[in-house]
Amino acid sequence: MKIAVFVSGGGTNLQAIIDRITSGELTNVEIAEVIASNDSAFAIERAKIAGIPSKVISKKILGAEAYDEATLSELESIGAELVVLAGFLSMLGPKTVKAYANRIINIHPALIPAFCGQGMYGIRPHEAVLAKGVKVSGATVHFVNEHYDEGPIILQKAVDVLPDDTAETLQKRIMKECEQVILPKAIQLFADGKLEVVDNLVKFKN
Amino acid sequence: MKIAVFVSGGGTNLQAIIDRITSGELTNVEIAEVIASNDSAFAIERAKIAGIPSKVISKKILGAEAYDEATLSELESIGAELVVLAGFLSMLGPKTVKAYANRIINIHPALIPAFCGQGMYGIRPHEAVLAKGVKVSGATVHFVNEHYDEGPIILQKAVDVLPDDTAETLQKRIMKECEQVILPKAIQLFADGKLEVVDNLVKFKN
Repeated sequence: MKIAVFVSGGGTNLQAIIDRITSGELTNVEIAEVIASNDSAFAIERAKIAGIPSKVISKKILGAEAYDEATLSELESIGAELVVLAGFLSMLGPKTVKAYANRIINIHPALIPAFCGQGMYGIRPHEAVLAKGVKVSGATVHFVNEHYDEGPIILQKAVDVLPDDTAETLQKRIMKECEQVILPKAIQLFADGKLEVVDNLVKFKN
Repeated sequence: MKIAVFVSGGGTNLQAIIDRITSGELTNVEIAEVIASNDSAFAIERAKIAGIPSKVISKKILGAEAYDEATLSELESIGAELVVLAGFLSMLGPKTVKAYANRIINIHPALIPAFCGQGMYGIRPHEAVLAKGVKVSGATVHFVNEHYDEGPIILQKAVDVLPDDTAETLQKRIMKECEQVILPKAIQLFADGKLEVVDNLVKFKN
């Protein structure tokens, strides 16, 4: 199954996917292209090293509407069957989201419905977790619909917030123990045809 | 340390506390009285069997203001140092909450800040969890302040929501694996003087 991976930054979640394909843990999955929101994303280097085609499509340069059309046309031309947003800080356009309904997955570094929504990206959900004093956080993989962070949840994984945690140590632990575990797992479930969306809920097929 | 346990129903969380005192897992803790919101609470039977004094103080009968005064005066007369709301479906009055600031703890059957607040008691948070399709839930022990479910969080514990879960199976698992683990643990931490509230956050002292 051909997937396109959208990135904005360092690409550690992209790397986790690449590594699991290389090791054979993730099967029947091929990254057809890495699409970056900006040309300074280190994820582009990771793609190059792994021999994966990459492309920058910038909403800033194109404007929202042309961006939407450019991404959709790119996805169709490479034959992407699944779109993976792996640390992608921008938003796809409405045409793309509609055309790829239930075929776009996003990873969010918190337990939705907590610490999500507008402005909750990067280090911010972790800062909010510490400010609220919650003792458990984690990550969520979900399908993307027109309401960001509100699409059907596929997988979640929790970790304890530790007394000495800073936003940075929490972010790293959630990345390693949650995001990099459930994102490849969700991709595999999708590739194996085991996910079904019924009434905005994800059902697992046997 | 003398504690008062407020109950409204079956008293399974009360039983968990009694059992851990009996087994010696919970030390330096004595239940001075069980206070029920209604005389049909089975928790009263559990108290009797364990030889613990019990009392019904009914907000319905007394009215809100007299209820507040009656509970506060009862707590002071038995010398309660900590108030534990263990499946208590009513709300304590403002005088009691103020007099026992940072000395009232509540167990909520979900991961606050998710699935809490008005109307979220009993089976309802579990129904809401399933309706939203989240894959992780749990329980929260927190101090009670004037905003219910918003006081400083002491402990949280997560469990996976399973594909076949009903609200009832989820409720039972969270009760057993989360509530009955973290509630006694929080009581012990309090009894040992290890909890401190700083800027509305719980800090653990060594």
